[in-house]
Amino acid sequence: MIELLLVGIGSGNPDHLTRQAVRALNAADLILIPRKGEEKAELAALRRRICAAVIDNPATRYAEFDLPVRDPSIADYGARVAAWHDAIAAVWKDTILAEIGPSGRVGLLVWGDPSLYDSTLRIAERAGRELPMTVTVIPGITSLQALTAAHAIPVNEIGAPFAVTTGRQLREAGWPAGIDTVAVMLDGDCSFLTLKGRGLHIWWGAYVGMAEEILVAGPLDAVAEEIVETRARARAAHGWIMDIYILRRG
Amino acid sequence: MIELLLVGIGSGNPDHLTRQAVRALNAADLILIPRKGEEKAELAALRRRICAAVIDNPATRYAEFDLPVRDPSIADYGARVAAWHDAIAAVWKDTILAEIGPSGRVGLLVWGDPSLYDSTLRIAERAGRELPMTVTVIPGITSLQALTAAHAIPVNEIGAPFAVTTGRQLREAGWPAGIDTVAVMLDGDCSFLTLKGRGLHIWWGAYVGMAEEILVAGPLDAVAEEIVETRARARAAHGWIMDIYILRRG
Repeated sequence: MIELLLVGIGSGNPDHLTRQAVRALNAADLILIPRKGEEKAELAALRRRICAAVIDNPATRYAEFDLPVRDPSIADYGARVAAWHDAIAAVWKDTILAEIGPSGRVGLLVWGDPSLYDSTLRIAERAGRELPMTVTVIPGITSLQALTAAHAIPVNEIGAPFAVTTGRQLREAGWPAGIDTVAVMLDGDCSFLTLKGRGLHIWWGAYVGMAEEILVAGPLDAVAEEIVETRARARAAHGWIMDIYILRRG
Repeated sequence: MIELLLVGIGSGNPDHLTRQAVRALNAADLILIPRKGEEKAELAALRRRICAAVIDNPATRYAEFDLPVRDPSIADYGARVAAWHDAIAAVWKDTILAEIGPSGRVGLLVWGDPSLYDSTLRIAERAGRELPMTVTVIPGITSLQALTAAHAIPVNEIGAPFAVTTGRQLREAGWPAGIDTVAVMLDGDCSFLTLKGRGLHIWWGAYVGMAEEILVAGPLDAVAEEIVETRARARAAHGWIMDIYILRRG
């Protein structure tokens, strides 16, 4: 039987790894390293650097594989994602069987935490239909926590609720009713631009927790353009960007 | 100048500490250990066990202090909390000055993450008015992440928002509009009982991530009473309980 370890690794800093994550990675027989194409080569390199920083088990095997891409010929969004997850699960299965066969511990490094806007758990469920496996989740520091730590702010006001959402949801569904604080993830489109003129405050960060960290905070109306320009420059320089922000009313 | 390190320690398991947290605690000249009265003696003991597990710097000093309590004679909630935070900040200042004087590194262990329903950052801001200090935040695993890891579930549905709130808010403000998933923290009153009969699913956990971990999941209507009874028994046995849950519609 395969024991799959989904290990939250934080937002890119090897020091975000917990003692539990370090132990789990060192107990793995095989580490799977997905590659996402040329543009994101730096991300696969970052995974390898994190492994090199924390794994000292000489018996650990590493297997890199190319992540399948979504099939644009499938019109329905849900069906397209489902087919994509099936394709990734098939590559996991083939890679695991080729490297260690049907039993052993397999580690997969997950950015942030496996619970938060990540499809690894869903892919694992699909892979388990073809290759019997148990799934163990090791929590990791999310980019939201790295953001609040960098700005030294609480995410919530005293005793008050907050929402976590995506850029797309913020654009399409608008500001959540009855909530004054919203954390926004997966926003490649600077959706905060649609919320100017409402007296919001923003705390933004890119590469949070890493040496490359960039932070901007202030009234949204005053700093929105600065964030757009900073983000574009950083993305061009690195070839990729991971950013996140918190918006607060009043 | 004092350098105050607010170190997120996770939900009670020493293996939740990150490499960054271990390094920060080992760099501290002084570790502050608050005591919260007889009932929570086990919590101070847990802080000491975590320190013993990860700090190997023989020069580290430890100072325990009794946390002030809220003054029930102050009727206004906001004023009562402000006076309480001022009183805690004053004890920090007195303890730091007595132990190491006005310069050095001071570490404070914070349950979960300092950004999430925690007043340490607000107390630090008050302490800094009286004793010059810089504040560095080290993120930690939250009980919400330990809960989702234990149940091996994502907190969000694909691309969908979720809210994080308190038991009091859930009772007083009701279910957040337009959101299907709600994580509830700081609920000593089993507020989920007010939401029976709505087709909700619950994933509940106490002492999540620790050896004592207890998990219950299922349709809320079917498992609500089991959670109430399990919670009461566990609280009586340990003298304290930290629990958390996620509710989802549909």
